[in-house]
Amino acid sequence: MRALLSVSDKSGIVEFAKGLEALNFEILSTGGTYKLLKDSGIKAVEVSEYTQSPQMFDGRVKTLHPKIHGGILFKRDKDADEAAKNGIEAIDLVCVNLYPFKETINKTDDFDEIIENIDIGGPTMVRSAAKNFANVMIVTDKNDYDRVLKILQSGKNELEFRKELMIKAFEHTAAYDSMIANYMNSRFNGGFGAKQFITGTKVFDTRYGENPHQKGALYEFEDFYSKNFTALKGEASFNNMTDIHGAVMLASSFGNVPAVAICKHANPCGFAIKSNVYESYIDALKCDPLSAYGGVIAINGTLDRHLAQKLHEKGTFMEVIVAANVTDEALEVFADKKKTKIFTHNSEFLKRANEQFDFKHIDGGFVYQERDFVCKSELKDAKCVTDKEATKAQIDDMLIAWQVAALTKSNCVVYVKDSMMVAIGMGMTSRVDAARAAVAKANDMGLDLNGCVLASEAFFPFRDSIDIAAKVGVKAIVQPGGSIRDDEVIKAANEANIAMYFTGKRHFLH
Amino acid sequence: MRALLSVSDKSGIVEFAKGLEALNFEILSTGGTYKLLKDSGIKAVEVSEYTQSPQMFDGRVKTLHPKIHGGILFKRDKDADEAAKNGIEAIDLVCVNLYPFKETINKTDDFDEIIENIDIGGPTMVRSAAKNFANVMIVTDKNDYDRVLKILQSGKNELEFRKELMIKAFEHTAAYDSMIANYMNSRFNGGFGAKQFITGTKVFDTRYGENPHQKGALYEFEDFYSKNFTALKGEASFNNMTDIHGAVMLASSFGNVPAVAICKHANPCGFAIKSNVYESYIDALKCDPLSAYGGVIAINGTLDRHLAQKLHEKGTFMEVIVAANVTDEALEVFADKKKTKIFTHNSEFLKRANEQFDFKHIDGGFVYQERDFVCKSELKDAKCVTDKEATKAQIDDMLIAWQVAALTKSNCVVYVKDSMMVAIGMGMTSRVDAARAAVAKANDMGLDLNGCVLASEAFFPFRDSIDIAAKVGVKAIVQPGGSIRDDEVIKAANEANIAMYFTGKRHFLH
Repeated sequence: MRALLSVSDKSGIVEFAKGLEALNFEILSTGGTYKLLKDSGIKAVEVSEYTQSPQMFDGRVKTLHPKIHGGILFKRDKDADEAAKNGIEAIDLVCVNLYPFKETINKTDDFDEIIENIDIGGPTMVRSAAKNFANVMIVTDKNDYDRVLKILQSGKNELEFRKELMIKAFEHTAAYDSMIANYMNSRFNGGFGAKQFITGTKVFDTRYGENPHQKGALYEFEDFYSKNFTALKGEASFNNMTDIHGAVMLASSFGNVPAVAICKHANPCGFAIKSNVYESYIDALKCDPLSAYGGVIAINGTLDRHLAQKLHEKGTFMEVIVAANVTDEALEVFADKKKTKIFTHNSEFLKRANEQFDFKHIDGGFVYQERDFVCKSELKDAKCVTDKEATKAQIDDMLIAWQVAALTKSNCVVYVKDSMMVAIGMGMTSRVDAARAAVAKANDMGLDLNGCVLASEAFFPFRDSIDIAAKVGVKAIVQPGGSIRDDEVIKAANEANIAMYFTGKRHFLH
Repeated sequence: MRALLSVSDKSGIVEFAKGLEALNFEILSTGGTYKLLKDSGIKAVEVSEYTQSPQMFDGRVKTLHPKIHGGILFKRDKDADEAAKNGIEAIDLVCVNLYPFKETINKTDDFDEIIENIDIGGPTMVRSAAKNFANVMIVTDKNDYDRVLKILQSGKNELEFRKELMIKAFEHTAAYDSMIANYMNSRFNGGFGAKQFITGTKVFDTRYGENPHQKGALYEFEDFYSKNFTALKGEASFNNMTDIHGAVMLASSFGNVPAVAICKHANPCGFAIKSNVYESYIDALKCDPLSAYGGVIAINGTLDRHLAQKLHEKGTFMEVIVAANVTDEALEVFADKKKTKIFTHNSEFLKRANEQFDFKHIDGGFVYQERDFVCKSELKDAKCVTDKEATKAQIDDMLIAWQVAALTKSNCVVYVKDSMMVAIGMGMTSRVDAARAAVAKANDMGLDLNGCVLASEAFFPFRDSIDIAAKVGVKAIVQPGGSIRDDEVIKAANEANIAMYFTGKRHFLH
């Protein structure tokens, strides 16, 4: 038996090689791996010696040789004679992992160095061995070393296992080249090349998809969720994950302030920023406690016992609680609540969440775009278009309303008063209907909108929404502007003595 | 100069080789390409002759040889001596395209045959040549043959061009292995493997993304849009594409009937199925003509002059019209409308649109799931839970309402009467708010809901929405059921003499 070992990530390789030696494998190797194995007392043969062909061009050509690839690829049952005739001996196991291209581009911007780091020999061995998985074991993941040795020792289920490793091998090379292609397109084509590769690694299967009759799973980029997001209690469902995305984005979008966001069906139904997360929660719940029931709450701070007890009160039920930190005491509070799920994320979560792109499946493909963010300067640069100007306090509220509106499905209108969302209308085909629904809801909740501010993520096409706003006592409005009826809209605001600001920037979200 | 040609798709290769010969290229080739070139009078050298190494194992090992890969990979400026010493001569152009793995799996289910079709030598040559694009031209697309010859003749911008071809080459191998990995995961892991590869080919850049400050583009799977979808007038925007997806799905979801759907912000605001598409349009518009303004209309039939003239009327404006067929006369009607965009799709569009999967971007990754479809049997199998049963006409309307609800953002309620949507509430965090908003809108529109049916894509958590329904004269309701308060909800229906059906199947959409 013969194994070829040539790895970029060398952890565990010595033990693995020793295990193979113990199973009477002859070991072939190259470069750094060869040196390490020799230094560790393993009787390895260098590939160039084995092929009798020199390593060339600083290692660009080492393993691309018929003796290597013939040895990997020939069919043991059918090609044995031809192999013997040509002096080709079988290679039964190939262990190769590739230096992650991501690490290369993270560490340098030098294009020659990046190109030099593109591995040719490695992927070829991986692909050869995967193709001939019927005869060859292809090991690309160091976490498989133990299983490989065990299976080889037992001789059981080896073919099934080789098939599993084959799939992993093609995933490895596909991910590798996808990363290269995306990098080139990002460097030379502004991220919008002729092909777009979206590659995810499964974090977990969800119990089902958006609905119980659909299978579903969460896939991550690199190790985003594995590293930064922890389930402390319960398992996230498919819909939980999309709601968590919305709620955490919103709760964290104001930086290091004690913001609390409650989401349902991917839309906010509660939001507040008060002096601490406990107070923020109390106020976030006021906007729409009915919708909040069974929702997802994101806490930009610590879930401690005090807040946990409040959330645990009879009549309240958050299906999912996500917080930057969760104390052990807080967790204990929910020990009796089977249905409550609790998650935490580390500070990297938010930093790394700021992907610069976004995509959406449509039939037969997907649309792909740069991500939408609200810039801090948008409100500062906004133009007051009315006689009346907003007060400092109103501007602070407008900042909140504007950010919430940008993270709510279009069409939406968001009403904020004293750093608390007091009404919201969303996801409707008509903006004035959203405005009307929001006000009706606030009335039901007994919330006084007088003195609040209003944000709309896109322009008001007519004055009707302004008239509704005036009636309930809105004092300041922020919107992009740009309607052909802006004059009419401004006139309505002036008539009601409302301050109105145009940002010039729209934030549709669908 | 030396070129290596080994292609699966042989169209144009003879002319290309002749062009290269005229430029004094020595031609290396293999297998079928070699034979074709020889037969066409081109002086090609077979790779096995060139390497002095036999082709082995039914072609599994042909080009994996240092003389080939050294010739491709060595750096002309720096490695020339080493190359000469080792008898390695430069290969300056590599022309390889891979037999599409998709064709293989479309044509056979035999796993041995599928494995045999996985190309090892081809991708390796493509990757070697792409890596050394500084010295080598890598041609993977037959559509580039002419440009390649022209650039070689002129000697101008060759490096820039080689870089462009390098990116294409890595796209080619990335797409190839992604397809293999996805296939293996679909065959052995139910489509939910450890990695998921979503690969799109750019159809066009959109003017911008969801908002003007975002760049955007449409990417297709295989050639879905290129082949089946045609812009007859105007260019689709990013948001148009997502709306078109929603509108066409809805309009076509009842098969070969003259359905018309109007969408805005990815939600339906008009729908009807009458005796012809003209009548359907008239009725589809009634539900919410205000929202319909600037919307996307999908016509499951022919846009002829008669319908075009109606759509062209003053006060009406559809930004996008999509129809299965569009007559020349209809197109002429819109000649003066700069802003109206018209698209058509062939019958394959709908067949091929039925992808079995769906995905959604969230921070740090994506959720992936089986696609949600409404099965034809869902209503047939639905259980009547009230004293009253629905009439045949009501069941027909329920079928429509149920399908519309499944394609509307949650929470939603859909009211249908005489095959026409008369009210809709959508995208809200509260179901009763959606019900209330829908009824308020219908009142505004002067639509009489008496005698209509109602569908809800998920269960009613309380009786409140039923009470609203009763008040406006809803006669039959379809919903999944499954609330802990189903008894209360059924009681409300019975009290109002409404027939209610439980499908047992939820259709959340976000």
